[in-house]
Amino acid sequence: MSLLAVGSVALDTIEIPSGRYEDILGGSCTFFSLAASHFAKVRIVAVVGTDFPEEHVDLLRSRGIDTAGLERAEGRTFRWSGRYSATLAERWTLDTQLGVFAGFQPKLPAAWKKPKILFLGNIEPSLQRAVLEEVDRPELVAMDTMNFWIEGQNASLKKTLARVDLLVINEEEIRQLSGEHNVVRAAASVRQMGPSKVVVKRGEYGAILFAEDHAFAVTAYPLSDVVDPTGAGDSFAGGMCGSLARAERLDAAAFRRAMVMGTVLGSFSVEGHGVERLRTLTTEEVEGRYHAYGRLTHVEGI
Amino acid sequence: MSLLAVGSVALDTIEIPSGRYEDILGGSCTFFSLAASHFAKVRIVAVVGTDFPEEHVDLLRSRGIDTAGLERAEGRTFRWSGRYSATLAERWTLDTQLGVFAGFQPKLPAAWKKPKILFLGNIEPSLQRAVLEEVDRPELVAMDTMNFWIEGQNASLKKTLARVDLLVINEEEIRQLSGEHNVVRAAASVRQMGPSKVVVKRGEYGAILFAEDHAFAVTAYPLSDVVDPTGAGDSFAGGMCGSLARAERLDAAAFRRAMVMGTVLGSFSVEGHGVERLRTLTTEEVEGRYHAYGRLTHVEGI
Repeated sequence: MSLLAVGSVALDTIEIPSGRYEDILGGSCTFFSLAASHFAKVRIVAVVGTDFPEEHVDLLRSRGIDTAGLERAEGRTFRWSGRYSATLAERWTLDTQLGVFAGFQPKLPAAWKKPKILFLGNIEPSLQRAVLEEVDRPELVAMDTMNFWIEGQNASLKKTLARVDLLVINEEEIRQLSGEHNVVRAAASVRQMGPSKVVVKRGEYGAILFAEDHAFAVTAYPLSDVVDPTGAGDSFAGGMCGSLARAERLDAAAFRRAMVMGTVLGSFSVEGHGVERLRTLTTEEVEGRYHAYGRLTHVEGI
Repeated sequence: MSLLAVGSVALDTIEIPSGRYEDILGGSCTFFSLAASHFAKVRIVAVVGTDFPEEHVDLLRSRGIDTAGLERAEGRTFRWSGRYSATLAERWTLDTQLGVFAGFQPKLPAAWKKPKILFLGNIEPSLQRAVLEEVDRPELVAMDTMNFWIEGQNASLKKTLARVDLLVINEEEIRQLSGEHNVVRAAASVRQMGPSKVVVKRGEYGAILFAEDHAFAVTAYPLSDVVDPTGAGDSFAGGMCGSLARAERLDAAAFRRAMVMGTVLGSFSVEGHGVERLRTLTTEEVEGRYHAYGRLTHVEGI
């Protein structure tokens, strides 16, 4: 059941159609762990500064997330600032301040070295490998990455890729990583780099899993009110890895259920600014939307 | 079982990554009827000029399509010319020559006035209504439209919309028609204009049906080789309406199967230039991909 995640815990300032929100709780590890917490005990490895409000740590703990690996270092918390277009279709990064994240060296509590599932969030590829070095080989190692590392740390990124089982990545990024526009070819190319499974996230359109001998596609859950896309991809990964962590066996059926749970958590995540919707989300609501997804896509006797 | 379609039969000149194809068979009614022919007897109402090769008519007839409503008028056949970007993500219309289509007045053979399903392809809204006037109320009236009519014939288009049951439209066009960016809201707004059902086509990402009391989403069938997107939307509509034409009852289950058949036919259509793939497509291949879609999306016990 154990799920270990490394990534960023941040303070975000975002400008979305509903307003401007300053220094609110954000970061890939935050969204990931809140989403995954509906399915499994999540342990997080991350760093924050002395300015990080204790109430945010309390929120994570209230969801059963183990924060023993959340280091508090001298300095300022990692900050990200972004602005979305009126339709939310475009996003511009306005500012990034690494703060204590610049010197981040992931430290794992001694009791955490045998996770069933390890999620390497979107951090520097060499740090992802450093975490891998510290653990006994988990049943599943999943990772995320971004254009910044694909461009600036390509060789290092490929070293990490060679050692993971599952890459969760968005459509534009896999095109960049593979040099292929077509996502089927892009995924085939990336699977040659190491991961036996690749999930391509397509935002409001859904996601596709390309595995050893099958593909599985999910459509996004249609919403009439999308408030803030920040963290949707991390929530997807959290829902997916959380669902896998509670599965008895990591077979194709488990990955399919996990992809739907990723879709469900991603859909809730965008319904409020920052983590607001995840803050109040109940596991009953999660299960309810999981079945609603079934009704949305069910075809009799196909 | 009867399915009546009105629309364009054309000669297309297209520039795609695999080459330039001049004066090849095209038109919305062509793709629609070839796709639908795997499920039902299709009757088409359209016009071509004296320059239209008889072999194209033979192709339609070889698929069992009734061309008694295909008028041959003095003059040149409707011609469309377009160029696609290297990734096929963008398309530019280079030229449109209406030819005999300019004076088109749909004429229905006397025996065709009681169709079960009527599909009003993408033609001038007043002509769509003219066809509606000529038939006894079918069980289902479906229609397509495009930005050209949304902009230039908005009031007339809304008169047609008020009289149909199903609008099949692409994502950008429903945004334009409704003034809503969010597709859930856009579909709700358009359903207020008349059609009880709206299908939003999202190209390589799939489609969503918004009906009276439920929504149904399909993901597109992933392909490693997309050759030519021309006619994909018409093939989708043809697969969908064809599947509905053979259904015993037009209930929710029939619409769901029909959406998948639309997806299947759209996916085959883009695998060759123009109608090349549809020309050789067998009903066995159609059924095979229908079940492959089931495997692509199946979630155990959801």
